Amino acid sequence: MRGARVRNEETTVVPARRPPRVAIENVWPQVDGGAVPIARTPGEPVDVYADVFADGTAGVRVAIRWRRRPATEWRWTPMTPVGNDRWHGAFVVPEAGAYEFAVAGWVDPYLTWRELLDRRIATGSVTEGDLQEGADLLRAAARRTQGPDASRLIEHAGRLRSLAAGPLAEAARSATDPEPLELVARSPDRSAIYLSPTVLRIRVDPPRARASAWYELFPRSTSPKAGRPGTLRDLRQRLSYIADLGFDVVYLPPIHPIGRTGRRGPDNRHDPNASGPGSPWAIGSEAGGHTAVDPALGTIDEFRELVAEAGRQGLEVALDLAFQCSPDHPWVTEHPAWFRHRPDGSIRTAENPPKRYEDIYPLDFDSRDWRALWAALREVVEFWIGLGVRWFRVDNPHTKPFEFWRWLIAEVRRDHPEVLFLAEAFTRPKVMVRLAEVGFTHSYTYFAWRTTRAEIERYFRELHEGVSHEVLRPHLWPNTPDILTEQFHSGRRSVFVQRLVLAATLGSHYGIYGPAYELLEHRPLQAASEEYARSEKYELRHWDLDAPGSLAPELRRINRIRRENPALHAGRNLAFHGVDNDRLIAYSRRSDDGTNTVLVVVNLDAESPQAGWTWLDLRELGVAPEEPFEVEDLWNGPRYRWAGARNFVRLDPQAETAHVFRVRRLGGGS
Amino acid sequence: MRGARVRNEETTVVPARRPPRVAIENVWPQVDGGAVPIARTPGEPVDVYADVFADGTAGVRVAIRWRRRPATEWRWTPMTPVGNDRWHGAFVVPEAGAYEFAVAGWVDPYLTWRELLDRRIATGSVTEGDLQEGADLLRAAARRTQGPDASRLIEHAGRLRSLAAGPLAEAARSATDPEPLELVARSPDRSAIYLSPTVLRIRVDPPRARASAWYELFPRSTSPKAGRPGTLRDLRQRLSYIADLGFDVVYLPPIHPIGRTGRRGPDNRHDPNASGPGSPWAIGSEAGGHTAVDPALGTIDEFRELVAEAGRQGLEVALDLAFQCSPDHPWVTEHPAWFRHRPDGSIRTAENPPKRYEDIYPLDFDSRDWRALWAALREVVEFWIGLGVRWFRVDNPHTKPFEFWRWLIAEVRRDHPEVLFLAEAFTRPKVMVRLAEVGFTHSYTYFAWRTTRAEIERYFRELHEGVSHEVLRPHLWPNTPDILTEQFHSGRRSVFVQRLVLAATLGSHYGIYGPAYELLEHRPLQAASEEYARSEKYELRHWDLDAPGSLAPELRRINRIRRENPALHAGRNLAFHGVDNDRLIAYSRRSDDGTNTVLVVVNLDAESPQAGWTWLDLRELGVAPEEPFEVEDLWNGPRYRWAGARNFVRLDPQAETAHVFRVRRLGGGS
Repeated sequence: MRGARVRNEETTVVPARRPPRVAIENVWPQVDGGAVPIARTPGEPVDVYADVFADGTAGVRVAIRWRRRPATEWRWTPMTPVGNDRWHGAFVVPEAGAYEFAVAGWVDPYLTWRELLDRRIATGSVTEGDLQEGADLLRAAARRTQGPDASRLIEHAGRLRSLAAGPLAEAARSATDPEPLELVARSPDRSAIYLSPTVLRIRVDPPRARASAWYELFPRSTSPKAGRPGTLRDLRQRLSYIADLGFDVVYLPPIHPIGRTGRRGPDNRHDPNASGPGSPWAIGSEAGGHTAVDPALGTIDEFRELVAEAGRQGLEVALDLAFQCSPDHPWVTEHPAWFRHRPDGSIRTAENPPKRYEDIYPLDFDSRDWRALWAALREVVEFWIGLGVRWFRVDNPHTKPFEFWRWLIAEVRRDHPEVLFLAEAFTRPKVMVRLAEVGFTHSYTYFAWRTTRAEIERYFRELHEGVSHEVLRPHLWPNTPDILTEQFHSGRRSVFVQRLVLAATLGSHYGIYGPAYELLEHRPLQAASEEYARSEKYELRHWDLDAPGSLAPELRRINRIRRENPALHAGRNLAFHGVDNDRLIAYSRRSDDGTNTVLVVVNLDAESPQAGWTWLDLRELGVAPEEPFEVEDLWNGPRYRWAGARNFVRLDPQAETAHVFRVRRLGGGS
Repeated sequence: MRGARVRNEETTVVPARRPPRVAIENVWPQVDGGAVPIARTPGEPVDVYADVFADGTAGVRVAIRWRRRPATEWRWTPMTPVGNDRWHGAFVVPEAGAYEFAVAGWVDPYLTWRELLDRRIATGSVTEGDLQEGADLLRAAARRTQGPDASRLIEHAGRLRSLAAGPLAEAARSATDPEPLELVARSPDRSAIYLSPTVLRIRVDPPRARASAWYELFPRSTSPKAGRPGTLRDLRQRLSYIADLGFDVVYLPPIHPIGRTGRRGPDNRHDPNASGPGSPWAIGSEAGGHTAVDPALGTIDEFRELVAEAGRQGLEVALDLAFQCSPDHPWVTEHPAWFRHRPDGSIRTAENPPKRYEDIYPLDFDSRDWRALWAALREVVEFWIGLGVRWFRVDNPHTKPFEFWRWLIAEVRRDHPEVLFLAEAFTRPKVMVRLAEVGFTHSYTYFAWRTTRAEIERYFRELHEGVSHEVLRPHLWPNTPDILTEQFHSGRRSVFVQRLVLAATLGSHYGIYGPAYELLEHRPLQAASEEYARSEKYELRHWDLDAPGSLAPELRRINRIRRENPALHAGRNLAFHGVDNDRLIAYSRRSDDGTNTVLVVVNLDAESPQAGWTWLDLRELGVAPEEPFEVEDLWNGPRYRWAGARNFVRLDPQAETAHVFRVRRLGGGS
């Protein structure tokens, strides 16, 4: 705080510049002391809080000063007090890019005077000099101002001065005009403005980062003919089916050559002759590594055509970044230093005791040759970006150094800001958030394991608070090739519907692993296991998309509802509501502009009808306490007229399972 | 995080140095982003918390690295995990001065190996290579180590290697010896240690800052003869009385010349002829200003003698710093720019509508000549330090700029680290804490207005949490010349005893305004007023110290108890206990070394006996759940044998009002 100091008297050194009168503390959002930007998409609000106060009875003004970088003009958004010297303000980031902000505070002498004047008026102790002092302060403000504001200030000063000559009590009351206060607030003495010391940053990602619906599938299972392995060409034919379901992103497990050494067979059994296709995550063979396409699937050109066709159909192709190698990967011989060696010289395989994965070598990020390894991994990402990939799903990022990701993602996004990274991490809470802090734009979550109402409410409240809420965009998957939670094992359709509606409406990003999901695939490898029996990870599957009972209609419907309701794209607006039956869960989401509100009620009981009375938080729905409103069930059709917090709901899992209500005020509003 | 970067391959820039594997976040205590040191006294513990974790399954070690400044040798204190990746450690600052600390984290490859080995042992999947790898890691640690640790590491490595040749299951179990883990933890690879980025600071104040008992009195009321004004010589005679009561500090309201202009008369009435002595806070006359002694009280030499005599009696003299002036202060003519002027050229008097204080001009810290003003105020402080004053009570510091105090206190304490500043601020919570942050070593509190058990518990919990607990040392006053709270208006002795015991045992610093307190002075200016009738602020009073019913014996007793029990000097150890009667309050304090524990029970009912059963938190008393213990009532005499959480207490305000128990384990411990 000291700055340069000069000798003032013989013995005493006083600061050279007048220090700030105001204190600014506890600015929020601030992640890791300001080292980490918060994340937004265009059009999203940034809510800022700070403790701001001055000594004595000084009247304080507070504003957010923010701009897009590199240097555009500063914009100022006023903040208002919310009690106990805490202030709040909000601004909307208009477009993608880097932003910065700080909190500005200053003492407003006219406001100080006005607050004292109010007390003098209340106690009848106004003097002529008091009013003249106010006039002087207005003239000082006019000198700092240009244009019409300056003339208005001069006028107000003149009026105050003339009032001072008349009856004081009356004059005092006339002096409380709000206009000069506003004019002065707009014309602060810039030299007296103090800024919070840390410049805080916002990373505004492209609009696509706001919401997406993913469809994961294995290209080798897309063949129209049972028994013949699918190819990238087959997958191209499948795109229209996926686009018709309403998805935005087609996500492919690794499409690279698969190693033979240690290859796993069906149901993850040992496959000594490597007769099966092997796991796509055992990357690399004599046909190439992370920048090659498995010859069984096709060619680089065919991949390029796939991406192009997907684009024509409104789909993006997302690839898996699994930074590990099969023992047959070219890097094993070209760069042995990139792997960890045992004392006998052999390379360590991946291990999760008692399992050792004979088909996978982890990369050694502690390698002495780490710099070349990092560079090579970046080349991999750049390679696929060159082929049109703009979204990567990263396999197990929490097992690689955080600082590697911080570097990689920053480097890639500097040149390609449209590229997004989804972290597939299931680990401790702080590690999950750290991955978002180092740059992952999206993150897998524990949604798959949160099944009761209490579990869901608690988990989503956790996701929507503190640092997590500022940096981590949750992506919800009811299933993945690795995760078939126990509730699906019965194969009940109602469970698949329930979990689909929850995933698609609790968050802005969701995905399913198909066609397993829409075809209600549900047999586990063994009881209580979360592995699929006959998992596509280890063998080819053929899926009959026309099988009766497919969830395709429900997928189409929920994706259409998502597209049509901006409330379901907004990431910062989830509110839970009360229901007097714990098997029912109710929550709402609202668009940032308040014009679109969706209220969801789901029956979490897969077998029996459940009924109850809601206890709605009407403010979250934008509805007044006594105001009737309409709820239109976008999922099932009917419209109801509701009023107040308490309304009756009943959901039968044999029929509707969920309400997805669009909420509309009847008074002409939304 | 990036640091210097060098070109590695044609297209990719990789950091030049290997970035840290560990993440260190949310280090506590950290005030204002590390800009503000926390405050301690010698021998007090510093509890440090941090979130520390690495990627994957790496075994992490965490320690506090701390030292006294300027550069002494670094000391290392290990931290231990407390759940959810949060770590805790504590160290004791041995002596006064400036300290700094950071949290250090590193990946310990041997710990990583050991944790994996435990899992391999549990699943029976240990291999010979696993054990050899452990041996290699121990040899690597030995190479970083000197002396006996190195030889022990080599021995352990040899044993592990030889075990690898035998039966693996048995060998694995033998490999879990804790010693090598400890040896490796002591010999980290220094180049892999990552430090939390902000260096955090501790200001260790002199031992006197830890605890004190203050006695405030007006020198002009110390005359042994009624009617004759008291002087500094009279005050010198009074010192033995104060020392005998057991106080540490004699605090004097301003002793400077008092202005005549606008002088206030008895009961703060207008005194047009300035016939009374005036308020000591209306500082300055033709006899001088802030560096002069009121000629009615004596001379500078007599003040010097007073300080010397106080020192001989084990007392310190604390002065009031009231940075304001009477209209007759020399600065008014010498430095008119240091005051605020009205438009008509007159100087503004102090104002608190409807009151205007005609006898006081506030100083204008916004003055254009602020630098000379600051320098002059510093000269005032230095002047009194030169006369032996080492403790200042600062009047209304919250009405002057925070940064003025930050500068003044830092400058003064750099040359005189033994000088302490007590902030007399009654204002908003964040402003109170801010004053501590800018350097005040002690602070007045709202104790005087916290009277019910719920109010007291809530307020002291607030004082003992967060930033406040790290920087603000509370000073408790049951009364001051400005504050006679309504509960005293009845004049009941039990109220004076109750509030004395609370003030003297709830905090380490307390004070009374005497002889008003011990003589049970209780008449307010008017009903519900907190002003004393016939306040000494405006007239001379004569006090009969030998009046019957004086609280002198109680003062002597409580001050003796405070001196004899280090638990009552410690600032960081207050715990409240349950009692099933809300008119009783129970709390304990414990010395930092745990050898002294005091448990206080106070009857908050001034009129009637109250009884109840305690619900003690026995851990806070250092007593085991089933262990009987002795409580000796230091206030009233008797000893009791207690056991468990529930014990009977009964307090009659006509007799004992409070228990002040020394708690002793009967098993030979304290």
